[in-house]
Amino acid sequence: MIPPALRRYLPILDWGAVYDRRTLEADGLAAVIVTIMLIPQSLAYALLAGLPAEMGLYASILPLVGYAIFGTSRALAVGPVAVVSLMTAAAIGNLGLTDPRAVALAAITLAFLSGAFLMAMGFLRLGFVANFLSHPVIAGFITASGILIATSQLKHILGVTAQGHTLPELLSSLWANLPDTNFWALGIGVAATAFLFWVRKGLKPLLLGWGLPPRLADILTKAGPVAAVVVTTLVAWGLGLAERGLSIVGDVPRGLPPATLPSFDLDLWGALIGSAVLISIIGFVESVSVAQTLAAKKRQRIVPDQELIGLGAANVAASVSGGYPVTGGFARSVVNFDAGAATPAAGAFTAIGILLAALFLTPLLYFLPTATLAATIIVAVLSLVDFSILKTAWGYSKADFAAVAATVVLTLGLGVEAGVSAGVALSILLYLYKTSRPHVAEVGLVPGTQHFRNIRRHRVKTAPNLLTLRIDESLYFANARFMEDYILDRVTRDDQIRDVVLQFSAVNEVDLSALESLEAIASRLHDMGLRLHLSEVKGPVMDRLKRSHFLDHLTGEVFLSQYDAWARLARPPEGPGGLARAAE
Amino acid sequence: MIPPALRRYLPILDWGAVYDRRTLEADGLAAVIVTIMLIPQSLAYALLAGLPAEMGLYASILPLVGYAIFGTSRALAVGPVAVVSLMTAAAIGNLGLTDPRAVALAAITLAFLSGAFLMAMGFLRLGFVANFLSHPVIAGFITASGILIATSQLKHILGVTAQGHTLPELLSSLWANLPDTNFWALGIGVAATAFLFWVRKGLKPLLLGWGLPPRLADILTKAGPVAAVVVTTLVAWGLGLAERGLSIVGDVPRGLPPATLPSFDLDLWGALIGSAVLISIIGFVESVSVAQTLAAKKRQRIVPDQELIGLGAANVAASVSGGYPVTGGFARSVVNFDAGAATPAAGAFTAIGILLAALFLTPLLYFLPTATLAATIIVAVLSLVDFSILKTAWGYSKADFAAVAATVVLTLGLGVEAGVSAGVALSILLYLYKTSRPHVAEVGLVPGTQHFRNIRRHRVKTAPNLLTLRIDESLYFANARFMEDYILDRVTRDDQIRDVVLQFSAVNEVDLSALESLEAIASRLHDMGLRLHLSEVKGPVMDRLKRSHFLDHLTGEVFLSQYDAWARLARPPEGPGGLARAAE
Repeated sequence: MIPPALRRYLPILDWGAVYDRRTLEADGLAAVIVTIMLIPQSLAYALLAGLPAEMGLYASILPLVGYAIFGTSRALAVGPVAVVSLMTAAAIGNLGLTDPRAVALAAITLAFLSGAFLMAMGFLRLGFVANFLSHPVIAGFITASGILIATSQLKHILGVTAQGHTLPELLSSLWANLPDTNFWALGIGVAATAFLFWVRKGLKPLLLGWGLPPRLADILTKAGPVAAVVVTTLVAWGLGLAERGLSIVGDVPRGLPPATLPSFDLDLWGALIGSAVLISIIGFVESVSVAQTLAAKKRQRIVPDQELIGLGAANVAASVSGGYPVTGGFARSVVNFDAGAATPAAGAFTAIGILLAALFLTPLLYFLPTATLAATIIVAVLSLVDFSILKTAWGYSKADFAAVAATVVLTLGLGVEAGVSAGVALSILLYLYKTSRPHVAEVGLVPGTQHFRNIRRHRVKTAPNLLTLRIDESLYFANARFMEDYILDRVTRDDQIRDVVLQFSAVNEVDLSALESLEAIASRLHDMGLRLHLSEVKGPVMDRLKRSHFLDHLTGEVFLSQYDAWARLARPPEGPGGLARAAE
Repeated sequence: MIPPALRRYLPILDWGAVYDRRTLEADGLAAVIVTIMLIPQSLAYALLAGLPAEMGLYASILPLVGYAIFGTSRALAVGPVAVVSLMTAAAIGNLGLTDPRAVALAAITLAFLSGAFLMAMGFLRLGFVANFLSHPVIAGFITASGILIATSQLKHILGVTAQGHTLPELLSSLWANLPDTNFWALGIGVAATAFLFWVRKGLKPLLLGWGLPPRLADILTKAGPVAAVVVTTLVAWGLGLAERGLSIVGDVPRGLPPATLPSFDLDLWGALIGSAVLISIIGFVESVSVAQTLAAKKRQRIVPDQELIGLGAANVAASVSGGYPVTGGFARSVVNFDAGAATPAAGAFTAIGILLAALFLTPLLYFLPTATLAATIIVAVLSLVDFSILKTAWGYSKADFAAVAATVVLTLGLGVEAGVSAGVALSILLYLYKTSRPHVAEVGLVPGTQHFRNIRRHRVKTAPNLLTLRIDESLYFANARFMEDYILDRVTRDDQIRDVVLQFSAVNEVDLSALESLEAIASRLHDMGLRLHLSEVKGPVMDRLKRSHFLDHLTGEVFLSQYDAWARLARPPEGPGGLARAAE
């Protein structure tokens, strides 16, 4: 019998116990397809991160095994991904290192810090923190990152050098170096890009039209980048293009991933920790959203806090085997899922595939043009670019729009870290601002019911002696004084009022600051000869109020329902009428 | 006719137009009393801020005139105050300056930055920002600052040197220098402190017992510090104590406040701007709360955004006349109010009093022992120290307690800036955390009414086919996924459910992230053969939902009231019963 704590932290014990031949076949097939897709991707993303190509391969071996042991998603394909690679480049770029060994060590250390942070979050069950990254901010960030990534790859297509982590830097650097364009690189890059776009859109229908079985057509489509790699490598080798200035991958060490250790230099930690936190949270959010989407399709569940541990283990594994930060990739996981991956073992089998590539294929990569890798990245990331979130947010809510627009503009203009931080900060500030100036409705009785609604929107009954205000927000320090002013201001404008009822149906909390404001309101109303009542106070709020002296000093009553308050307090108007009309 | 815009920014036009002899007399008497109180305080607080004594006087002249023109409170007494002086000392201490002229220039620049920031906030109507400083955080901060201030003054009582901006630094510095204690300073300091405490508690009853009129008894009581100043100055002069190592105020320049300009060195601005923002906000909050309390007693109103301009003008005035940051003081304003101040002109008259002191009295201050000034500060600030907020917060809400405890501990342990920043950050984080895991109640019908309450707290009717969840929070990015999980989890545990109603009476907002979650919930429920309905959706939320496609895809209906939903959807249970019992 396995202890439940062990089961919780080692999901492999669950699915491993029922592993059978059918699952093995499914996982095996998925692993083959993902491996084919991952070989060029891992090389390309390593170059995007500013690292040697082999680090991409290393990041695709042990990390996948780490996730397979600790992760809960059956379909998530972990490894180097575009956005995290871009963030890695930005984080290491901040350090201003020039020695390639120092750069590699920084990447390994970043993976370690990121892994340790993710695992700590997982053990402390802090997965909810990721929820503060709102959907629009993520969407804006991914779109802007896609543009940055595609732009950063143009230098390989043009065969020039260019630097920068922001769109203006990249564009001006490209422009300045445009005269140095290498037309062999441009030819290969443009051809590869066009080919890959055609593979995405046109190849599968063509293959199906030729009568190939859909599954085979799918695999061939996924192998498009491999075909581009093979053909352009052969061209570069055959025509001797390296001597004509074409940038090629060159020597990639052959063999097992090296055993590495992160740096324990605290200055380096201090310089990287902020980036590690951002990379962890972005990677986690990206990974969990694809894992949840895929799990839901098969009525499976993923456990977000355990996912933190799984991704943390993957990153720690990257740091001890010469890799760099990894997470679950969107496109690759969808491929894994569609190919029928049944358990996390598919990831471990993929790791074997990449290991074989590292052992035997690397000499063949010598003549691979970097322009081809750039083309695979550009085609992959342009599918992430989707500006529709701007339109959706604009139509729905200006606050959401402001957050997403700020994220897009600042990511492009100031880089990934500033962009995503500003997006999160702005969405939280806008939320706080909204709650600090709550909506307050003056309500009356909907005739023929016991239901109360806003007098400005509905035809309702009111009584001149009774003012009922429905406060549409929890009462807390940020809005306590606002409410105090609002209520006292409303009351002084109408001298027929004798009783004020605050309908608390939307008040989910009353903190100590708001309690003091309520006491102030009660005492000021008392001075004016008015009574203050509450209605529809929720259980948790009532429990809290009972712990204070507020209820002893309340001049009025606390009614279970607003209708009870109405039945007890409303007096018929002296004049005719009493039925307020809906304004508008 | 004065244009309304001018009227808004120049409240003096309102009260100045109806100024008469009676108001003049009232303001004049208040000014005399406040002047008597302010002379020793202004000198003492300047020393607390680490500045020459005369800067305290200068900060009590032109700033008072500035506030009188632009401020809206009739009773606020502006000038140097304890907490802002302490924060000034901390801000300038951070710079590590040694040249006294550089220190004075930094203080002047701090007043300018603070004034400019306050005025900018006022013109942008950002006064609500101060509401994010919760009552418990302010109370904790004031108490901890009081302890820090009193401790910082012990060095003058002991006649030793001591440094530090935190309690541990101050205590260890005092302890190390204890052997150097000057017993003349100790004698004068202890005597003055004891005398001032006695004046506070015992003098007024005694004077009243002697048959003095209450008003006169009051004035004499307020003059206690002046008596201490006069007597100890005479003692120090008569016994030649300065030659025996007693620290005295020494030369205080005689004359008008100097015309000064702040530094426009951007490095200095960068180093001071954070402190200036904190000083502005703390000063504004302290000032507005006392102004509001006093205004309420006379049914007057203050305008918080105009108060920002008034206090900003006062600080800018301080920066051009050799002063340092000022704000409205608590104790002094209460004295001003009690003494009958009727308009801001009382402040201008006080300024004349202090000006006369600066012109004629400064030579008399030469032999004034700093121990006496320290005693006046200690007695003044110990009245601010009140730990009861910790007990109140503990009894009412652990979140409030955490915020106030963090504020107190960090203010004492790390200094004023870290303390108040941590308090604000923690109270916001705790609020966000609470809203990210909202309370959800499963509700049923209270028999004999149309009112729905939590089935765990009330005896209510339920129907097995109908699940009604009342979500006790606005739906936004931080809790969207939580709600998604909660609802789907609840539904899968009960296969009798056919209809799910979300009662939106406490949902004050649905942002774009939450909208996407609602869409996901609706589609997942649809896949499971269940319908999703909403009830009691508020006007502003409904307006928003109508702008999206959510309502088109909603499988159920939107009911005006939860009772409508019940009447339409609830089917009688197949077995007996249907009346759920309140579970504890």
